[in-house]
Amino acid sequence: MTTAGSAQGPSSLHCLRCGQEVRGFTGCPRCAAEGIGANAMPPLADLAGLELSSYPGGPWGWPETLPVSGPPMTLGEGDTPTVRLRTDPAALGDGLAPECGSELWVKYEGGNPTGSHKDRAMAVGVAAALETGADTVVAASSGNAGAAAAAYAGRARLRCVVFTDEGVPPALAAQMDLLGAEQVQVEGGFLARNAAMARAVEEHGWYPLTSFSAPSPGGNPYADEGYKSVAYELARDFAGRRIGAVVVPTCRADLLSGIERGFRELSAAGLVSAAPRMVAAEPAGAAPFTAALRHADRAAQERTRVESHPTAAFSLGEERPCWQGLDALWRSGGTAVAVAEKEFVAEQRRLAEQGLLLETSSAVAVSVARRMLRELPELVVAIGTATGMKELASGAAGG
Amino acid sequence: MTTAGSAQGPSSLHCLRCGQEVRGFTGCPRCAAEGIGANAMPPLADLAGLELSSYPGGPWGWPETLPVSGPPMTLGEGDTPTVRLRTDPAALGDGLAPECGSELWVKYEGGNPTGSHKDRAMAVGVAAALETGADTVVAASSGNAGAAAAAYAGRARLRCVVFTDEGVPPALAAQMDLLGAEQVQVEGGFLARNAAMARAVEEHGWYPLTSFSAPSPGGNPYADEGYKSVAYELARDFAGRRIGAVVVPTCRADLLSGIERGFRELSAAGLVSAAPRMVAAEPAGAAPFTAALRHADRAAQERTRVESHPTAAFSLGEERPCWQGLDALWRSGGTAVAVAEKEFVAEQRRLAEQGLLLETSSAVAVSVARRMLRELPELVVAIGTATGMKELASGAAGG
Repeated sequence: MTTAGSAQGPSSLHCLRCGQEVRGFTGCPRCAAEGIGANAMPPLADLAGLELSSYPGGPWGWPETLPVSGPPMTLGEGDTPTVRLRTDPAALGDGLAPECGSELWVKYEGGNPTGSHKDRAMAVGVAAALETGADTVVAASSGNAGAAAAAYAGRARLRCVVFTDEGVPPALAAQMDLLGAEQVQVEGGFLARNAAMARAVEEHGWYPLTSFSAPSPGGNPYADEGYKSVAYELARDFAGRRIGAVVVPTCRADLLSGIERGFRELSAAGLVSAAPRMVAAEPAGAAPFTAALRHADRAAQERTRVESHPTAAFSLGEERPCWQGLDALWRSGGTAVAVAEKEFVAEQRRLAEQGLLLETSSAVAVSVARRMLRELPELVVAIGTATGMKELASGAAGG
Repeated sequence: MTTAGSAQGPSSLHCLRCGQEVRGFTGCPRCAAEGIGANAMPPLADLAGLELSSYPGGPWGWPETLPVSGPPMTLGEGDTPTVRLRTDPAALGDGLAPECGSELWVKYEGGNPTGSHKDRAMAVGVAAALETGADTVVAASSGNAGAAAAAYAGRARLRCVVFTDEGVPPALAAQMDLLGAEQVQVEGGFLARNAAMARAVEEHGWYPLTSFSAPSPGGNPYADEGYKSVAYELARDFAGRRIGAVVVPTCRADLLSGIERGFRELSAAGLVSAAPRMVAAEPAGAAPFTAALRHADRAAQERTRVESHPTAAFSLGEERPCWQGLDALWRSGGTAVAVAEKEFVAEQRRLAEQGLLLETSSAVAVSVARRMLRELPELVVAIGTATGMKELASGAAGG
């Protein structure tokens, strides 16, 4: 089989939208000049010859699918469980009985080492940073990405700087601190925060593990390839069963896009017969993908801009639909759904009463999945991106 | 193969120490009359015919090894990763180079659904409760066990009452609340708390998921069988490699004893060639096992009593060595080691700087494991019982 990585170091990157070869981590400059944040990614991996039944899970379970060639950087990330939720009328809450055949599953990413899916990306991103010879990595984050970046940087003995803003809950700030991150709090919201990170990347040559440019193309493309492992695990765990849709809490769509890429690789190698529809779940207060898909033509969709308001799902909140996310929705025949704060906060509490304590953002995805099952009986997986334990200190969990 | 469970419901229990058949959940009455808390357990399972390479992990990975026959109650517990720590002189902190051949691993139980190893036990305990027809389960807990009990009770639609004391950190109280536990805070320390639970069990017939009698025999014996899965996972993951010792943060030794039982089953079936030594790790302020092993004869060991002081490892703290723990140490040729608060708090911070945020109690075990490696080069596994995320709110993590 051919592999995405090479002995010479990280793979070359090409714009997902226009195909141009791109250097650096600010996405495609040509598309940015049109006002569109389009990420540039390494080529898809060829999975021919791999067997799902022997895939051990996690990004390093199949290292040949990753655009890095150095040694794995691991804290035991990935291989997370999938838990089936009740979908009886009482659990659905509104008395509408779902059609026979409905199955609602949550993939619980809170079991990762720092409690969120970001560990899958940062494990790969820090390995990529080591390949470049970097001594310092940098992230802009409201918490989960910063904690993951700090953990893997610590594992690799790299320095880690995290640019945060006023919205970081105290428990997440404490987690980043303990994990050894040097936090720089920037006043003025996420645009000011990202601008500060851009200057640091420019001036000091620090290796960026997250998005920092505007319009945002999404995160570090090498890191983001770690998310393909979510698709591999789902395909392995549902062994031959048809997954109708995968619902993902969406901000810049790194996770959504990574999962779609994973399923595309699996389809190409004949390891799944059909890829699921990808669904972007958004809080109503910050829903650029939902707004974009209201437009009939793609040219209007990719130029959508909305007002983004702070919501209880504090880790979500973008003004534009990152192009990589639109691409994943288009390719998979998916959609985007926005949920009112009252609905997803109630969902979060109901999930906890069933034993699953998820961060507020994750409840947005479960709300969307429940709605979908009322319309079409199928097997739907919602990604529970992070544990709700991080929100306990701030009083955010449970609204 | 024969199985530990039966179609008629939970297996019968026999005292580990005197062999008498025992009913109920307060351990062996005959041994209690001698002042010794001895647990009564179901028979060991016969693993003949099982293959480690196809064991999927978790307590329900091999349901035939459990003393319950009902349907699995699961939130995706178990199958946790094992992460190798650095053991170079700088990481050891004191300039002593370990002998060649030393390997220090942490099994990270913080990845479980409620963030601790207790999920393994409560998954099985709640399934056992359902078999008895109980509608309410009850626990006495400083946090981790209560959260796990609440989560699995919620999953099973059972009512859950948790008796707590003043020492419960705010984040853990919040976690239990969100997971649907009815918390009853009892003034007067853990003895008053346990007495309140004993009255509730007696008066209401609630099903007890934790220890509540004095002298404590340890936890619910059906639940505790869930811990055997830690041994199965270690044997599978180190496939044929010799594990020298497993170091466990120890209070009433439910986990320590369960892991030893798992290895004993594996040895009996020829699935491992040698069982590791079990090592009880204790904070110096509450170290009954360490005190007990200073006595030359077993009769004195089992009657040891110490003063127990509150420590930063708040989830540990007993005055007597539960007999089940002594039995595990004797059978495996193990030992007990107490660590000063300053040492394990420093260890917790050092672990976090390497990317692993563990609860303070877990750092006690890692401290002990490091000490052991300075004396004997071998492969040692420390059990990282819970995530440090729960301590973020209270400011306990990192001392």
